[in-house]
Amino acid sequence: MNMAKQRQIKLGAFIMATGHHVSAWRHPDSQADAGLNIDHYKELVQTAERGTFDLVFVADSPAGWDRTKDPEALRRSSQGAHFEPVTLWAALSQVTSHIGFVATASTTYEDPYLLARKFASLDYISKGRAAWNVVTTGADVSNNFSIPGHPAHADRYKRAEEFVDLVKGLWDSYEDDAFIRDKQSGIYLDPDKVHQLNHSGTFFTVSGPLNVGRPVQGYPVIVQAGASEPGRELAARTAEMIFTANQTLEDAQEFYGDVKGRLARYGRSQEDLLISPGIFPVLGGTEREAQDNYDYIQSLIHPSIAWSILQRHYKGVDLSGYSLDDRAPPLPADTELNKSRLKLVTDLVERNNLTLRQLYLAVAGARGHRTVVGTPEQIADAMVEWFENGAADAFNIMPPILPTGLTDFVDQVVPILRRRGLFRHEYEGTTLRENLGLARPANSFAVARDQREAG
Amino acid sequence: MNMAKQRQIKLGAFIMATGHHVSAWRHPDSQADAGLNIDHYKELVQTAERGTFDLVFVADSPAGWDRTKDPEALRRSSQGAHFEPVTLWAALSQVTSHIGFVATASTTYEDPYLLARKFASLDYISKGRAAWNVVTTGADVSNNFSIPGHPAHADRYKRAEEFVDLVKGLWDSYEDDAFIRDKQSGIYLDPDKVHQLNHSGTFFTVSGPLNVGRPVQGYPVIVQAGASEPGRELAARTAEMIFTANQTLEDAQEFYGDVKGRLARYGRSQEDLLISPGIFPVLGGTEREAQDNYDYIQSLIHPSIAWSILQRHYKGVDLSGYSLDDRAPPLPADTELNKSRLKLVTDLVERNNLTLRQLYLAVAGARGHRTVVGTPEQIADAMVEWFENGAADAFNIMPPILPTGLTDFVDQVVPILRRRGLFRHEYEGTTLRENLGLARPANSFAVARDQREAG
Repeated sequence: MNMAKQRQIKLGAFIMATGHHVSAWRHPDSQADAGLNIDHYKELVQTAERGTFDLVFVADSPAGWDRTKDPEALRRSSQGAHFEPVTLWAALSQVTSHIGFVATASTTYEDPYLLARKFASLDYISKGRAAWNVVTTGADVSNNFSIPGHPAHADRYKRAEEFVDLVKGLWDSYEDDAFIRDKQSGIYLDPDKVHQLNHSGTFFTVSGPLNVGRPVQGYPVIVQAGASEPGRELAARTAEMIFTANQTLEDAQEFYGDVKGRLARYGRSQEDLLISPGIFPVLGGTEREAQDNYDYIQSLIHPSIAWSILQRHYKGVDLSGYSLDDRAPPLPADTELNKSRLKLVTDLVERNNLTLRQLYLAVAGARGHRTVVGTPEQIADAMVEWFENGAADAFNIMPPILPTGLTDFVDQVVPILRRRGLFRHEYEGTTLRENLGLARPANSFAVARDQREAG
Repeated sequence: MNMAKQRQIKLGAFIMATGHHVSAWRHPDSQADAGLNIDHYKELVQTAERGTFDLVFVADSPAGWDRTKDPEALRRSSQGAHFEPVTLWAALSQVTSHIGFVATASTTYEDPYLLARKFASLDYISKGRAAWNVVTTGADVSNNFSIPGHPAHADRYKRAEEFVDLVKGLWDSYEDDAFIRDKQSGIYLDPDKVHQLNHSGTFFTVSGPLNVGRPVQGYPVIVQAGASEPGRELAARTAEMIFTANQTLEDAQEFYGDVKGRLARYGRSQEDLLISPGIFPVLGGTEREAQDNYDYIQSLIHPSIAWSILQRHYKGVDLSGYSLDDRAPPLPADTELNKSRLKLVTDLVERNNLTLRQLYLAVAGARGHRTVVGTPEQIADAMVEWFENGAADAFNIMPPILPTGLTDFVDQVVPILRRRGLFRHEYEGTTLRENLGLARPANSFAVARDQREAG
C-alpha cells in the first residue's frame, strides 16, 4: 500500500467586493455596498475559513479602478471605492484563526520602509498569516502622487527587483532570537542580533533597522502576478506563489513549465513556487441551470459598461463606426499596460473569431481568467484536470457574485475535492507557510555570519 | 433644580507597549514582549472599553525609537520594535464596539494619498471610531526614506499645514449621498457627487478622487500634540483634540487659555477643540503604598539607561565629568527637536534645582507629563482640579506598567469619577465624534455648491 501523501490542491478565495462579474452588484444575491462594508468581508473570510481555504486575496490599485471618462459608464460602475488591503486584512485576522491574507501593494507607488513595516505588523497581528502580492501597478496613477509621470514598464520592474530585496533585508533586521527579555538581569535584547541593512541602490537609500521584529513567518509569503518576461523572471527569483490567468490547458502548461524551469537558475526547487491560475466558476445544479445563471448575470451588463470594457482594450482606437455584432478588429499592441493580459485577450479573439459583443461578454466576468460553467462535479473536474496535468498547484477561486458564489463553492465543490483526497479536511498548521508547505526563510544576516565563521 | 447636564471628563488610554515607565518591562506585572504581542493589546483595549474610555492612543515614530549608540543602554532598551498603529487599530476595532482609536502618523515621512486612504479605511472598518494624531516627527529618520536629510522645524510645519488640508480634501472626494446603488436601474452612483480635488501646492500635486468613500465620521477626528508656536497655530486651525504635557496647574491653564483663545480667529468655538493633558498615575491603597510602588519601579532603572536619558536631553554636551548627584547643568537650547518638551524639562530643572539623578528620575516615567502618586481618590482629585479650573477637557492616562496599570485605573479611579457625576456610565454614541461631542464636518465640495447656488 502506498502511504505517500497524495499531492494536495491549495485554494485561494480571490475576493472582489460585489463579485468578479462587472455587473455583479446588480444581481439580487450580491451585497451592493460591499466595497465599504466590513461585515460583508467578515462573512466572506469566515466562509473561506470554513472551507479550509489556504488564503483570501484582494487585488488593488493605489488609486481608483475605473478611469472611464464616459459619464454613463461611470454612473454605473461599482469599482471606485474600497478598503486599503492591509488595513482590511489586519481587521479580519482577529475574527479568523487559520486562513492566510494576501494583500496587494505597489512597488511603484509605496515606500519600502513603510511597506516592510506594515506587512511585518500584519504578520504578527495575524500570527503568521500574511502574504504580499507584489505589483508594479500597470495603470498610470502618478497624478495622485506628486511625481511627474508613470514610470515605464522596464523601470517599474527594475524598481520592483530592488524594492523586494530591500524589504526582505529590512525584515531581517532582528534575528529570530534577538530578544532576550530577562527581567532579572535587565537585558532586553542582543544588539549583535540587530542589523543595519545600509542599503544604497539605484532607487533607494535605506539604513534600517526596521522598527518591528522579524516577522513570524520570517518573511510574509511573497506572491507575484506579472506574466511578462520581466514579470516571470522576478517571480522565478523572488515569488513563492504566482497568480496567473490562462484560458486553455496548453497555455497554462506552457506558463507552468516556463516559470518552474527558471527556478533552478536561482538555486530554487520546484516546490518553492506554487502556481495558482484563476478560475471563474459559474455553478448550477445542472449544466442547464449553470448556463442560465451565467446568461442572467451577463444580461445585467448595460451597453455603456460594455463599450467602456471594449474601449479599455482598444486604447487609442476609435470604435464609433462599429456595432456590437461586428467582428472584433485586431487589438492594439499596448507596450506599457497589462502586457500579459492583453496577449491573452488577443489570443482569445483570434482563436474564436469573436464579435465585439462576444469579446466583452468573454471578459466581463473573468477578465481573461478561465471561466467554467457547470455543475459542482464539472467544476471539480476542470480543476483536477489542470492540477494533474502540470498546469496548476493551486487555484484562485473568483466567485461571480458575492457572498453567495463563495458559499456555494465551499458547500458544493470543496466536499467533492475532499472526497477525492485532493483537498484538506483540516488545516495542517497555523501559519500560511505551514499550510502552503513553504519553508520558513533563514535570516540573511545570520546566514552570512555562519558562513564567515565556517569559512 | 438645574437639569443642565454636568460637563463631562473625556478619557484616553495612552498605551505604550510595556507601560510608560522606561523600565516597565522589568516589572513583574508587565508583559515583556508587549510591543509585538497582539493579545496584550487586545486585553488593553477591552479593559479601556470596559472603563468606557473615549479612546486608546499609541504614539509612533516611522522608524525605531531608541537611537542610543551606547551598546549597554541599547541592550537594555525595550523600545525598538512595535506595531504600525493603523494596522494595530484596524485589528482591534473588530474585538471592540465603542472605543475610539487614535493612530499617530507623520506628515513628514508619509504620503498624503496613501495616508488619507488608510485612515478612511480604518474609519469604515471601525464604523466611525478612527482618529489621526498628526505629527511632524521631531527625530531625524531620513536615512530610512531615501531623502537627503530631515526637514527643518519650520518646513515640517509648512508641509503639515498643506498635508492636513489636502487629506481633508481627499476625504471629501465622495459626498455622503454619492452612492445610489439601485439594482433595478443599474445606477451605482451620482458622478456629480464625486469630486476631483486637483490640489497643486508647495509640497504636493494630487488630483484625486480618493478611492474610498467619505469616512463614516466625515473626517476621522484630528488630533495634534505640538506645543511650539507653529504647533499651537496648526492645532487651533485644524485639531479637534490636543494631547499636551504640563507639570503645573498654572502652565496647563496658560496652554489651555492660549490655544482656546486662538480658535475664534478661525471661526471656531471653544467646544470644537478638546484639550487633553497626559497624566502618569502611580496608584496605591495608601499614599505610602503608592510611593513604595513608585520607588520600586524607579529602582529598576539601570545606570546606562539613566545616562542615555540624560544624554538625550543634553544633546552635544559632554557629561563625562559629572556624577549623578551633581546639580544638573543648564539644558542646551536645541532648536529642532521637541521644542516644547525641552522647555518643560528646563522649567522643571530650574524650578526645583534638580540633580542629574533627580532629573532622570523625573522624566523616566512620564517623560515630562504630570506624575501623580497617590490613592485612587487623590488621583481623581488631581484630575478634577485641572478639569474644573480651565486646564483640561480630557486626560490621557499613561499607566506606568501594562496591563495592570490600566486595569487598576479602570477598577479604582473610574468608579470615583462616575460617582462624582463627571464621567459616563455608558457610551453616548457609537462613533468617536459622538462620544467626544464633536460635530461631524460638512463636505467642503457640497458647501461650496450650496454657496454657489444660494449666491
